[in-house]
Amino acid sequence: MEPVNVIGAGMTPFGILDDSIVQLAEKASFKAMSDSQTLDLQFDHIVVGSQNPDEFVNKGHLSTLIADRLGLVPAGATRVETGPSSGSSAFETAFTMIASGHSDLILVIGVEKMSEVDRGTASKILAKMMSYENETRYGATPTALAAMVTRRYMHDYGLTRDDLSLVPVKAHRNGAKNTLAHFQKETTVEKVSNARVVADPLTLFDCCPTSDGAASLVLASDRIVRDLGVSDQAVRVLGVGHGTDYHAVQHRLSMTSFGATIAAADRAFSIAKIGPADIDVCELHDAFSILELVNMEDLGLAERGHAIDMVKEGATEVDGQIPVNTTGGLKSRGHPTGGTGVAQIHDIYCQLLQKAPKGLQVEAPKIGLTQNIGGFGNNMVVGIFSTP
Amino acid sequence: MEPVNVIGAGMTPFGILDDSIVQLAEKASFKAMSDSQTLDLQFDHIVVGSQNPDEFVNKGHLSTLIADRLGLVPAGATRVETGPSSGSSAFETAFTMIASGHSDLILVIGVEKMSEVDRGTASKILAKMMSYENETRYGATPTALAAMVTRRYMHDYGLTRDDLSLVPVKAHRNGAKNTLAHFQKETTVEKVSNARVVADPLTLFDCCPTSDGAASLVLASDRIVRDLGVSDQAVRVLGVGHGTDYHAVQHRLSMTSFGATIAAADRAFSIAKIGPADIDVCELHDAFSILELVNMEDLGLAERGHAIDMVKEGATEVDGQIPVNTTGGLKSRGHPTGGTGVAQIHDIYCQLLQKAPKGLQVEAPKIGLTQNIGGFGNNMVVGIFSTP
Repeated sequence: MEPVNVIGAGMTPFGILDDSIVQLAEKASFKAMSDSQTLDLQFDHIVVGSQNPDEFVNKGHLSTLIADRLGLVPAGATRVETGPSSGSSAFETAFTMIASGHSDLILVIGVEKMSEVDRGTASKILAKMMSYENETRYGATPTALAAMVTRRYMHDYGLTRDDLSLVPVKAHRNGAKNTLAHFQKETTVEKVSNARVVADPLTLFDCCPTSDGAASLVLASDRIVRDLGVSDQAVRVLGVGHGTDYHAVQHRLSMTSFGATIAAADRAFSIAKIGPADIDVCELHDAFSILELVNMEDLGLAERGHAIDMVKEGATEVDGQIPVNTTGGLKSRGHPTGGTGVAQIHDIYCQLLQKAPKGLQVEAPKIGLTQNIGGFGNNMVVGIFSTP
Repeated sequence: MEPVNVIGAGMTPFGILDDSIVQLAEKASFKAMSDSQTLDLQFDHIVVGSQNPDEFVNKGHLSTLIADRLGLVPAGATRVETGPSSGSSAFETAFTMIASGHSDLILVIGVEKMSEVDRGTASKILAKMMSYENETRYGATPTALAAMVTRRYMHDYGLTRDDLSLVPVKAHRNGAKNTLAHFQKETTVEKVSNARVVADPLTLFDCCPTSDGAASLVLASDRIVRDLGVSDQAVRVLGVGHGTDYHAVQHRLSMTSFGATIAAADRAFSIAKIGPADIDVCELHDAFSILELVNMEDLGLAERGHAIDMVKEGATEVDGQIPVNTTGGLKSRGHPTGGTGVAQIHDIYCQLLQKAPKGLQVEAPKIGLTQNIGGFGNNMVVGIFSTP
């Protein structure tokens, strides 16, 4: 169990972009390599998280393509896929490679280019991550499942439509200050609650966009940190956990709690030897508004049914007790699926080094957490990070 | 660097099969779990190698789907993709997870179901692993590139058409005795040399089939081996290496040598602290006849340009000095792309435990090697294994 450090991070803007998937990966990676002073080093491996480049951009075998373009041949190159948590799973794979002692320097890339296909095609590609037998053949979509979760949560805990709107309002308030975010514009409870209904009770403003974008990290062993003299920017990976749940929502014990998050968090906290109370800042997977609340509760950051109280009290704001999605979350920063998990870690890395965008810096955070959802709530990765 | 062991292996027959991709994964996995006495244990993770289930069988997010079906929830679940070396890369990821000390028990699955689409569609899906800019847009296919490599090798080293035919003849001679092989029928030099030309000078018998099939391994830490009392079937992983080369063939230094294999082998041998002369049996990626010769030379098992002499002398036969592809190779055992790398390790595992099919057992091998190609010769994984 060699210690693992994040010594550099980079990301492209998220949005509807002209760059190709390889160009996005290249831009984010060169930022991370430049940031970590590793531009002239030979990497042991590159690990690429991407959900479906074969269908989104008609490119197969993406890891070698990117290794070639980045000039990293003959480093090993691997693509990792776990649906929308592909980026975090790529990070996890890279983490274990360094933790094993067999590698010292690894480049992690999370990338997706979703805008080359039309929205209908994108929806069909994304729906493949759900259960065909139990869900998609009846016409269910990720949004429809999220709507069911929301309705059940409202029934169980008395959440109101206007309460729920506070979540995307916060996301947009933060994202408006993040120059890399897909949407850099504030919104209001009234606008969210009265927007076009996508799947009742969810409106357009409860749903993250499909985006293009890439994020990248340089992971290094203690030896590399020492050799490069970058200990002041070596964010330590305290723990990583990965968990699954039954593929179809109907087979799960609860609709308002994700067992996969609980399993992943248990494991990550156990490796890190800390608990939820130690977290100073976190990035959670808010592809739909309700998920931010469910995730807070599954991670032990809020009491069951009471996450919304913390949102109302301002506890999840940048200057609150436990800031959540300080850079806009998936809702405002955007959601290029394979890119999201790595972007979350990028943003936590910046927070811990006090390099967050202006107006978004949490006061001297020591420990940060990321949580990324794959499938519809059935493949979760949790990461825990600390200051150098 | 915790030691890593393979304590069980299973595979389905390879061929054109009725089973779905999930059923294939399930059958291979239950064999591996049964073989390793781990049916009642909780796995830490499952790692699935599969090239393109989204397009071959219209299934996304395969790792969770399989974790659910196998009853392994809430284990972490990850899919790994590196083209046709996806299975070996999945094995590599699982290897590092145990080597890191963070995991004790991992299930590896390599699977592909290629026969649900027609051959033209399958070819288009597979061609995505090549360079669009430099290769596919001019109509190049993997077979066309292999034909160019063959022609160049013939020019450089004087290989004849009939000499080359000895390679698939040996593959079929071995495969005829392997009840899991796609083709269980011998062939002759005359038949191979005079078969229909696919890409001059390659004939139909120089090209592996597209197959359906799955293979599975159980990887365990020393602690699990001790607890289960399975040390007599714990094949040790001595080393794993992974290397890349430039994406397009035209950018590489040589057409008759794959730098990615050399990089992967250097690394694997260095970790294992042994050399090519120590290998007693190996499984090499012979998707096209010429590749078996090139691979032998890149791995240091034959002198440059002289692999064919060893084939002629019988050195690569089951009872030869360095048996190659004793169970039929990709040519005869078949090539469900994501399944192949894991099947190679399955067969080496069986060889080392002296459980090879009748007539295919090498005499008391101590060390075995696998080499698996991703992309067209640009993403290689090499594994080295020893008897318990």
